[in-house]
Amino acid sequence: METLQSAGSLMTRKVFNGFLVSFIIICVALCTTASGEDNSIKLGIYLPMSGSSSVYGQAVYQGIKVAHTIRPTVLNRPVELILADTMSKKMEAANAVEMLIKTDNVRAIIGEATTNGTIAGAAIADWSKIPMVSPTTTNPHITHNRTYIFRVCFNDTFQGEAAADYAYKTLGARKAAVIIDIAQDYSVGLANVFERAFMSRGGRVVSHTYFQTSDQDFTMQLQAVMAAKPDVLYMPNYFREVAKACRQAKKLGINVPIISADGVQTKELLELGGDDVEGLIFTGHFDKSLAVTPLARQYLNHFAAATGKDAGPYEVLGADAYFVLIDAIERAKSVRSTKIRSALALTNGFKGVSGVITIGSDGNAVKNLVFMQVKEGTFQHLTTVNPIDR
Amino acid sequence: METLQSAGSLMTRKVFNGFLVSFIIICVALCTTASGEDNSIKLGIYLPMSGSSSVYGQAVYQGIKVAHTIRPTVLNRPVELILADTMSKKMEAANAVEMLIKTDNVRAIIGEATTNGTIAGAAIADWSKIPMVSPTTTNPHITHNRTYIFRVCFNDTFQGEAAADYAYKTLGARKAAVIIDIAQDYSVGLANVFERAFMSRGGRVVSHTYFQTSDQDFTMQLQAVMAAKPDVLYMPNYFREVAKACRQAKKLGINVPIISADGVQTKELLELGGDDVEGLIFTGHFDKSLAVTPLARQYLNHFAAATGKDAGPYEVLGADAYFVLIDAIERAKSVRSTKIRSALALTNGFKGVSGVITIGSDGNAVKNLVFMQVKEGTFQHLTTVNPIDR
Repeated sequence: METLQSAGSLMTRKVFNGFLVSFIIICVALCTTASGEDNSIKLGIYLPMSGSSSVYGQAVYQGIKVAHTIRPTVLNRPVELILADTMSKKMEAANAVEMLIKTDNVRAIIGEATTNGTIAGAAIADWSKIPMVSPTTTNPHITHNRTYIFRVCFNDTFQGEAAADYAYKTLGARKAAVIIDIAQDYSVGLANVFERAFMSRGGRVVSHTYFQTSDQDFTMQLQAVMAAKPDVLYMPNYFREVAKACRQAKKLGINVPIISADGVQTKELLELGGDDVEGLIFTGHFDKSLAVTPLARQYLNHFAAATGKDAGPYEVLGADAYFVLIDAIERAKSVRSTKIRSALALTNGFKGVSGVITIGSDGNAVKNLVFMQVKEGTFQHLTTVNPIDR
Repeated sequence: METLQSAGSLMTRKVFNGFLVSFIIICVALCTTASGEDNSIKLGIYLPMSGSSSVYGQAVYQGIKVAHTIRPTVLNRPVELILADTMSKKMEAANAVEMLIKTDNVRAIIGEATTNGTIAGAAIADWSKIPMVSPTTTNPHITHNRTYIFRVCFNDTFQGEAAADYAYKTLGARKAAVIIDIAQDYSVGLANVFERAFMSRGGRVVSHTYFQTSDQDFTMQLQAVMAAKPDVLYMPNYFREVAKACRQAKKLGINVPIISADGVQTKELLELGGDDVEGLIFTGHFDKSLAVTPLARQYLNHFAAATGKDAGPYEVLGADAYFVLIDAIERAKSVRSTKIRSALALTNGFKGVSGVITIGSDGNAVKNLVFMQVKEGTFQHLTTVNPIDR
């Protein structure tokens, strides 16, 4: 076990502020492994199970657990999942990855669900040469200059360009308004990609306004939108702010199409937004009408039976992170981290739950994106965009 | 005036949460301009004058003010500086840039001094097509996919690689330890560049530990460093944490060379660190022994006469942001934003205070970096690295 040769070498590698490695636990782990009683393959999971991003973390974890019941073994050995809560905090995300690697001796890691958590955790996993697969982090930077970091979702460059394309070509919009959450790099980055892509197609950005996460009143931004008379309004923000802004837009009588992004595909958007988010269009990861692979059908049935509800995009991406990782270990015929890493980078046409997934050596997934719309209180599929066709 | 054609069009462009445009002020501005009484060229400055990053903001602003006394006119018109405080907050940085453009009608902007402030402000300046020059922000992402954003300092890719090169070649180090502030993308990014560059030269990273901004105790990280027996310790962190870590390292008897980065070249490092930072090496922007251009000599004399002290790197980079911008306006022979932007992108061999500055169309400065060392309570120049030579 490369990262746990002895208690002595563990101490030389890294000791953490705020936690003490328990030698007793390590000793027990070594003994059971040595005696062959436990031949499980340990996979770490680090997610925001509590705190501000817990909506995403809880959903991803439930998705992984159901995937594990479908595929509980690999290389004829049981897979053991070890969960660490990042509490939606950067430092806790770093701690979680460190613990999973050093104390739990995991072979690979799934997580995190958000940009901040993934940036912190990826630094540690990458240096430790432990493969990591993020289910849902779309920020382009997380895989940049990293060897061991992968994702099973598309990134924001693809997402922002697809939104601009849809606005310009499908909606026929020539004038766009954009409302940005200046406190979120996610929103600032997506808006920038959208605006450049929209203008490069010949469109004009006629209004460009800002707010800050947890703002309640969008009246002034929306009045600026009204005065600019756009053909489309782009709001690449999280679900709480989108729900509020849609409500206030409806009150003001704004009736241009509104496009948002993957962060809104949660049942909380529908609960918060009600009638006011009817008609909202967004770029998303998944629609169950597209779940045509055998694994997708099997998974969705299992999920419904196990939980009594339908799987959403975050559950499904959690499952795909797990399935892609298990597939890589199977192909690697090994639990050595370098071999798992190489196999992940050769993932080609994997028939996952959210679609067919190919991963490049840069760690990024090449896969379809779906345009969805809120209709009668549910998410309806509009169209699918293939990155190869564009 | 492109951005202020009428009160009506101003309202259509963008109205801000939290401030109301004063039509009286606008009217006065329009009237005085129309009557020709005020032919000044207005430049906006947005900096963290208060809050956690005020050390940097105050220094940069003082540097700009002295530069303005040396070169108070351009195109035979007086230059008027308008300052906005970002309070070291992202949203306030966005507000500041918005105000400078919409209310003050500035022709170009200097700022911000930190990554967070610059990312927020750059989004607005870029969309508004108002050229912006950051004096000190080294994060690679701020100019990425932006047309109107420039900087007069090097970026962290160059800085991290130079540190690895120095460690490997000049110090002859083969084993490096790294201590990272996981809460700062600046530190995580620099550490990643350093480690990859050090390993690509044949070195090994033998210890890689973390802390979080404002942590007080580095004992466990430093014990891990000691146990790993490195030849060099890299700490790309801000001055407060570096001063504390150096103090504790000395107490523990660690005597390997320590390398840090541009964030430590402040008098506060020397005050906080005292004898314990003696010997600290770092990559920096400026040393006065290298101030050989006529402008540099003139500026440093002026600065000393005006303030009674020597200019440091943050003052000097503030001055260079101003001088480079004035030079571009002069060459543009115009205050039109598109022409200033084009002239900035053609900055070639400008003999500034911090060195000779060339700016590419990607907005980044190509310029020298200096290795400095703390000796007898002062910063001493060790060597200079030219990006072309490497």
